[in-house]
Parts: sequence; C-alpha cells; structure tokens
Amino acid sequence: MARVGFVGLGVMGAPMAGHLLSAGHSVSVWNRTPGKADSLVEKGAKMAPNLASLAENSDVIISCVGRSEDVDQVVSAMADCAAAGTLFIDQSTIEPAMARSLARRLAEKGLRFVDAPVTGGSMGAQNGALTIFCGGSEADVIEAIEIMAPYTKRAERVGEVGAGQMMKLANQVAVGGALVGLCESLAFAAKVGLDVEQAHSMIGGGAGGSWAFQNYGPKLLASDWSPGFSVKNQTKDFGYCESAAADLGLEIPMTALVNELLKRLADAGREEDTTAALYDVYLDRL
Amino acid sequence: MARVGFVGLGVMGAPMAGHLLSAGHSVSVWNRTPGKADSLVEKGAKMAPNLASLAENSDVIISCVGRSEDVDQVVSAMADCAAAGTLFIDQSTIEPAMARSLARRLAEKGLRFVDAPVTGGSMGAQNGALTIFCGGSEADVIEAIEIMAPYTKRAERVGEVGAGQMMKLANQVAVGGALVGLCESLAFAAKVGLDVEQAHSMIGGGAGGSWAFQNYGPKLLASDWSPGFSVKNQTKDFGYCESAAADLGLEIPMTALVNELLKRLADAGREEDTTAALYDVYLDRL
Repeated sequence: MARVGFVGLGVMGAPMAGHLLSAGHSVSVWNRTPGKADSLVEKGAKMAPNLASLAENSDVIISCVGRSEDVDQVVSAMADCAAAGTLFIDQSTIEPAMARSLARRLAEKGLRFVDAPVTGGSMGAQNGALTIFCGGSEADVIEAIEIMAPYTKRAERVGEVGAGQMMKLANQVAVGGALVGLCESLAFAAKVGLDVEQAHSMIGGGAGGSWAFQNYGPKLLASDWSPGFSVKNQTKDFGYCESAAADLGLEIPMTALVNELLKRLADAGREEDTTAALYDVYLDRL
Repeated sequence: MARVGFVGLGVMGAPMAGHLLSAGHSVSVWNRTPGKADSLVEKGAKMAPNLASLAENSDVIISCVGRSEDVDQVVSAMADCAAAGTLFIDQSTIEPAMARSLARRLAEKGLRFVDAPVTGGSMGAQNGALTIFCGGSEADVIEAIEIMAPYTKRAERVGEVGAGQMMKLANQVAVGGALVGLCESLAFAAKVGLDVEQAHSMIGGGAGGSWAFQNYGPKLLASDWSPGFSVKNQTKDFGYCESAAADLGLEIPMTALVNELLKRLADAGREEDTTAALYDVYLDRL
C-alpha cells in the first residue's frame, strides 16, 4: 500500500480519494476549501496542513482540480518538496501543452508525471467506475493504473505525456455531438408540438440514440438543470479542444458551435447548470 | 389478410414487402425498375403492370419511394383508381407539408392516408425490426400499425397527418448530432496521432457513446463507405429538416452545419457513400 497525497476534493476527487482509503492506502488530503475534507478525515484520511507537507509525505500525488492554471499552481507548489521518484498523477482535464510542460519541469527535479483525465461523471466517481486516459512512460502508467484501480472501470495508456489529455478532448468532442443532437432534436419536436417524452423515447431507442439521450434526456424532460456536468466545465474543455485543434490545423466546427451555444447560457448567468440546459437555448428560454 | 399493393422496392421496400408476403398477405408490387420485383414474385408477389392496376386491386397501398415529388407522383397516379376507403400508407421520408397535401387530396376522393416514415436502416427492414412514426387519424393509424406489424419493432401514433414526418425529421437531427460527434471526435484523435481504434473503443464505451459509434464506427475504422444510409438520402432529409425548422422559426445550426459538410462529399462525387464518410471531410480526403 502506498502513501497517497490527494489534492482537490470536489465532486470527482472526494469519492476517488474515498475509494483509495477503502482500498487500504494511506491517504493525505488537501483542498483549497478545507471543509470538504471532513468526511474523508472521518474515514481515516490525514488532513495535510499545506501542499508542501502533503508532498513531503507522499509516494504518489494525485491532483484532481480545475483548469490548467490550477494544476500548474498546485504542482509547482509541491515540486520542490517531493522526494525524488515521486509519481504525480493529474486527473484534471487541462491543456495537453500544460501537461507536457509540467512533466518537463518535474523531470528536471527527478519527479515523474502521468496525465490521467477521467470520464464517467460524478456517478462514475462514486461507483468507482471511471474510464481513464493515461499519458506517460509505460512504467509510470502501469504504476498509475495500479494506484487508480479502486475507482477504475477502464484505464489504458494512450501515448506519451499529453496524450491522455488529447484523448479526453476527443472524448469531449463526441460528448458535444451527442449533446447537441439530443437538444436540437427534442427542441425541434417541442417546437412542432410533438410529445417530447414520446420523441425522447422513440428517437433514443433508434439510430439517433446515445448515452446522452439515456442520461441527460430524463433531466431535460424534467427541466432539472442541476449538474451533472456543468456548462462552465464543458465550455472550459471545449476551449481546450478548440485551441488544440487550431494548433493541429484541424477544423472542429461542431464543437465550436456547441461551445458558442453553451456560452449563451453562461452569459445568462447559468454556467453552473448542467449542459443539457442547452435545450433552453434552442427554445429561447434563457 | 389484406390485399396490399407495395410501391417502391429499394433496399427498404423490398424486404418490407417480403415480410408482408411471409405474414400471409396477398401482395402486388410495382417498381420503377421492374427487375427489382423478381425475387418477390418468386416468393408469391403479383407484379402489377402499372400503378392504376395495383391501385384497383388493393385494400391498402404502401409507398416506400424517395423524395416528396416521387411520392406525389405515384400517389397521384393511383388516386383515381383506388376504391373508396382504400388506405394509403407512405413510408418514405418526405416534407410534412407534402404529407398533409396528399392526405387532403386523397380525402376529397374518399381515400385515407397515414404517413409512416421508418427508422432502423436496411438491417431493420431485413430483420423486420423498424421503428415507425405514424401520423393520421386514430382509426387509420391502428389499421396501418396492424398491417405493418410483420416488419415493426415499435410503431406509434405521434399525431395527425404530417406528425409522423415531423418526428422522423426530429430523429434525423439526433442522428446528425451523433454522426458529427463520431466523425469530428475520431478525426481529432487521428490528427493528433492517437490510435483511432483505441479512441473509438474507449470513447464509444463512455459518455460520448452512441448508436452511431457502435454501428458507423467499425465501418469508419475500415474505411468502408458502402451504404448504410447514403449521403444523398441524409442531405435530402436534412433539407426537409431545415425548411420545416425555418417555417417554425427555429434555428437548427448543428443540422445545417452537418448538411453543409455532407454536401462537400456530394460535390466530390461521393453522394452514394455512407454518411460516416463525413470523417474524410475532416481529414481533407475528398
């Protein structure tokens, strides 16, 4: 069993850290908002007083925070304190270029890095059934996959550092297509005066069906816009998709379109709504 | 058992007519290209010498042809010859306004009409497992559903005449979203240099997954562009979606975008390819 330091106890990180505890690891935690650690401390996690202390006392450091700059900040704060050979696993969705930059800076200090963004949502984190896209050296990824096992449905090495983020961004593009298919289609049905529940059921069971239809559809029908995955997080990820695609000379016009439509929700103060609220953009209910 | 006249023996119509024969109906067939009737005639179908003769000898007339104008043409050719009370079932995907116009013109002659477009593809037609969206009076739809039972997985009345077409168009919008999600996502993965088979497998098993991922994905990976559902048919349907949406004052920008991208394939002489060939548009392989 390893000494694991876990940074970032949000809707994803908190249950992930809980699974590590249940598996018997020694877990230290740190979060910007300390209160979020309470239930984990009750289960046996140690609350680190600061990032330096967490880094000094961990063999593996997992971060699950928000944006590129957040990961940069917490990893930089730990880089000078971690013992040589410490493995950093970042499970946030960030820019692939930032993942590569962090790996380079850590390598200069004899530290190792794997980018390991996840998909499967808060339910996947709670049920320990996340899909994880891993980028790094073969040896580092094998070690990371073993540590993450308690909350993994499927984890694979997809390439060198940064590749995990690239695969996650490709995943977000697919999510965007299914999401806009759901919302544009049901908005069409609603506007025509069709029974939207019947449309959801009949269309979702056929060639237009998707995970989004099955999982976002019922919330859409109930006008339940609680996350789920928030507009804020989705537009963050789409921004990374767009800049990565631009670097490659690839046009991703659907993703750009969906991002633009979601930003209308954000502009209307609804950035914490779940992404299926895109439905309201179509029906001018902002 | 009814006397059923079946017009249009393409990849959808031929197996559907075959299921009616197997169920014990007396089936007359007509097709613009007569050779397509041969295998059905071997199974016991009567080949009608023309549309007038088919109409005179049928209690129920099913059309499964191409565009609005094709349905207009064949139904108009039969309207004066059918006995009062004959039920017309149109299974083509056409403009809702054309369905309503046909219903009005048939009603003036004492004839009945149900629009009943299908989804489920050529495999669904062969396996007798189509989903059918029915528009018409309650009594007419009940009768139509009974006749179509041999090739139905799920058939429901969704409203008055034209509503079946509207539901089919909503279905096509959802199909468009999932299709573009698949192609844009895997093109992103390919362009980055990720393993596209791994991307298909990992992404398709998660929150980005869809019927399109499962069914179009393997063809895309094999660069097998044989239909499937052709670019020509998809752009036809998207055109109907766009004009119906415009009439309603609804913007459907994703559908418009996918239609535009598919038209690039058509312009490159690839309108008979399956829709997943959209992947090649992203990778500039026209």
